[in-house]
Amino acid sequence: MSERLIVVSSDCHAGLPIWDYKPYIEEKYHEMMDMAVPIQIEMTQKAEDSFLIKEINDEWRQGIEQELTGAWDYEQRVKMLDRDGIAAEVIFVDGITETNTPPFGAGLSLPTKDIVPELQWAGAMAHNRWLAELCANDPARHIGVAIIPLLWDVDEAVEKVRWCAEQGFRAVMIPSMTNDFPGYHHTKYHPFWEACEDLGVIVHFHSGPGPMADFFGAGWPDESADDFPGAMGIYVSEVMWWLYRPLTFMIWGGVFEQYPKLKTVITEGGTTWMLPSWLRMLDHNYTDVHHSAKLGDFRSHLSMKPSDYFRRNIGVGASCIPRADVEMRELVGVDKMMWGSDYPHPEGTWPKTGEILDEVFTGFPADDVAAILGRNAINFYGLDADALQTVADRIGPDPSRFA
Amino acid sequence: MSERLIVVSSDCHAGLPIWDYKPYIEEKYHEMMDMAVPIQIEMTQKAEDSFLIKEINDEWRQGIEQELTGAWDYEQRVKMLDRDGIAAEVIFVDGITETNTPPFGAGLSLPTKDIVPELQWAGAMAHNRWLAELCANDPARHIGVAIIPLLWDVDEAVEKVRWCAEQGFRAVMIPSMTNDFPGYHHTKYHPFWEACEDLGVIVHFHSGPGPMADFFGAGWPDESADDFPGAMGIYVSEVMWWLYRPLTFMIWGGVFEQYPKLKTVITEGGTTWMLPSWLRMLDHNYTDVHHSAKLGDFRSHLSMKPSDYFRRNIGVGASCIPRADVEMRELVGVDKMMWGSDYPHPEGTWPKTGEILDEVFTGFPADDVAAILGRNAINFYGLDADALQTVADRIGPDPSRFA
Repeated sequence: MSERLIVVSSDCHAGLPIWDYKPYIEEKYHEMMDMAVPIQIEMTQKAEDSFLIKEINDEWRQGIEQELTGAWDYEQRVKMLDRDGIAAEVIFVDGITETNTPPFGAGLSLPTKDIVPELQWAGAMAHNRWLAELCANDPARHIGVAIIPLLWDVDEAVEKVRWCAEQGFRAVMIPSMTNDFPGYHHTKYHPFWEACEDLGVIVHFHSGPGPMADFFGAGWPDESADDFPGAMGIYVSEVMWWLYRPLTFMIWGGVFEQYPKLKTVITEGGTTWMLPSWLRMLDHNYTDVHHSAKLGDFRSHLSMKPSDYFRRNIGVGASCIPRADVEMRELVGVDKMMWGSDYPHPEGTWPKTGEILDEVFTGFPADDVAAILGRNAINFYGLDADALQTVADRIGPDPSRFA
Repeated sequence: MSERLIVVSSDCHAGLPIWDYKPYIEEKYHEMMDMAVPIQIEMTQKAEDSFLIKEINDEWRQGIEQELTGAWDYEQRVKMLDRDGIAAEVIFVDGITETNTPPFGAGLSLPTKDIVPELQWAGAMAHNRWLAELCANDPARHIGVAIIPLLWDVDEAVEKVRWCAEQGFRAVMIPSMTNDFPGYHHTKYHPFWEACEDLGVIVHFHSGPGPMADFFGAGWPDESADDFPGAMGIYVSEVMWWLYRPLTFMIWGGVFEQYPKLKTVITEGGTTWMLPSWLRMLDHNYTDVHHSAKLGDFRSHLSMKPSDYFRRNIGVGASCIPRADVEMRELVGVDKMMWGSDYPHPEGTWPKTGEILDEVFTGFPADDVAAILGRNAINFYGLDADALQTVADRIGPDPSRFA
């Protein structure tokens, strides 16, 4: 009996072409959408012109236009998953990075400035409604991550996360940049953590956001990029830190002490690049007191050291890890790393997933490969392993392939 | 012939009791000082009450009140250096952390918000005038670090750094937090880098500043600390990152590409905690292009990889390193680490420097110990080794002590 590997992508993306969100938005916001969307498209194009390099994206998309419609077309999407051998996927917002984001800034970066809160909620809920429909096609295979713009109003966020749970969502994404709002150590967020813990809803942070004005100037994308040489190098060098930052706040704030069953995930934050040094630094500041004695007590409210909370409460959506990360898997814990394809983003493994999996995983112990490619995600997200084995037996890779 | 070790502290502090800065400030600012200083003292006390824990500081100071006056009293200071076996010192602002900072926010944290630029310049120049006098007592032993609040006005900063060089300064400190000002990759700062390179003035960043409102709330120190549990744990876990950040901006901005002889120092930022992972991350983003291909070219203006600029242009004021850091010295480079006592700060080695040096350095190769304790600083700062040997022969440790 040949049991195929269950591969779970802990990092995929989906989103409608922006105008197609209209039927999912309450009618009272339609007029506003007609005004705002053209501006959003123009801003996106400017940003693409100024650093995303339209040519690169256009070239990448050439010849795979049809396959990329899987960003929103269910039939096409399942074809792509099957071709990649992926049995189940965790679905974040923003299909094709720049062109399939919800209106009113409700996409991956969830800006918290220059946005009308009510409208951002409207955009987020439109996406959530559509995503619930998409996932309902086959709930065992598609784990949607609903969008919760938590910062504006914690009570509303609690109400919305209950709605999400009723729709079948077991995962939400919140902003990783809190900007002028209190950080996640603030006690005002406790009702939200409590609701997520109660409902078994997993809180996600996804890579991407950063303080763009620091890199590109306050006037970006209008400001001249020539004044800010190397801005993109700074962005890519800092982006993981900004992703891990909310967890730094939550750990020290005692959130996991108070809500011991709350689960969170860091998605597309790599594994060996930042994670081990981040944990070492946190533990150092918990255990070594001489250098901070003058700063008073900031640890007695925590019953464990920071890395213990990491082990218990934080998942690692490692996405497209390179072979070097698999070699160093013990640094992070082989039971922690969850692979992801990042479909349909150009930095992902798709459309060469099979080839890349061979490169990255061949020669490692079969059990470790099975854990990183799927079992860890099955355990962490509580997926239906039997249902997924049925899918895997049809489309999943044969384990002997990585021998 | 027994040649004693030349010990250089790359991290010491000095500052007058705040009212004693008055004679060093232009008379036109005296009235403003009379109004501002009581407020500054009150804010400091509030901050000390809310997290610095006055009792801890008071207890630490008990019985060493006289010795601590070395923060500003030259005769006392030299006694302390001699007792510690320190031949030369690099002197930053803020003597006894909380109580010897210049007026108008011109201390270690150089705030860039809620401050009148003209007044901050006035406070900084008062300190610079006094520090020039202090160092003139024995320029071979005392390397003063002048304060340059660079952000407000680059032309003024250039003018002031020329004045500093004329007074004998070969070192300046600039803000590590740029806040709402452009980061140090912005081309507007080029005239300042050019002036420092021309004059041979070394630019310093010193640990301490961070976005305090993120940790303690915008209303801090008035806001209730209870709303922000663990804030100090977050601060100590992030403080190194905020210290290294300006160098991330300068490296990618091509500052060291354009000004190849410009020297900078990261002081009190540890060695093994953050430095190796920071360099690895920067180099990764320079060399690995797949994941960032869609972001365009951000590296072709750099002729070397980031860690090469680090080797060439950045010094490491490692301060009071633990034994573990000496064990891992090859990670950073034994020719890079510059020890420091942090006198008279309570987190430093003083008043137990001798005892701590024994603990940290005993058993390591004599040449490595000599490099970390003094030779690296002599080379980096271009100190007068002969003059310092004369001092060391009187007060320095015997190398056999660490055998």
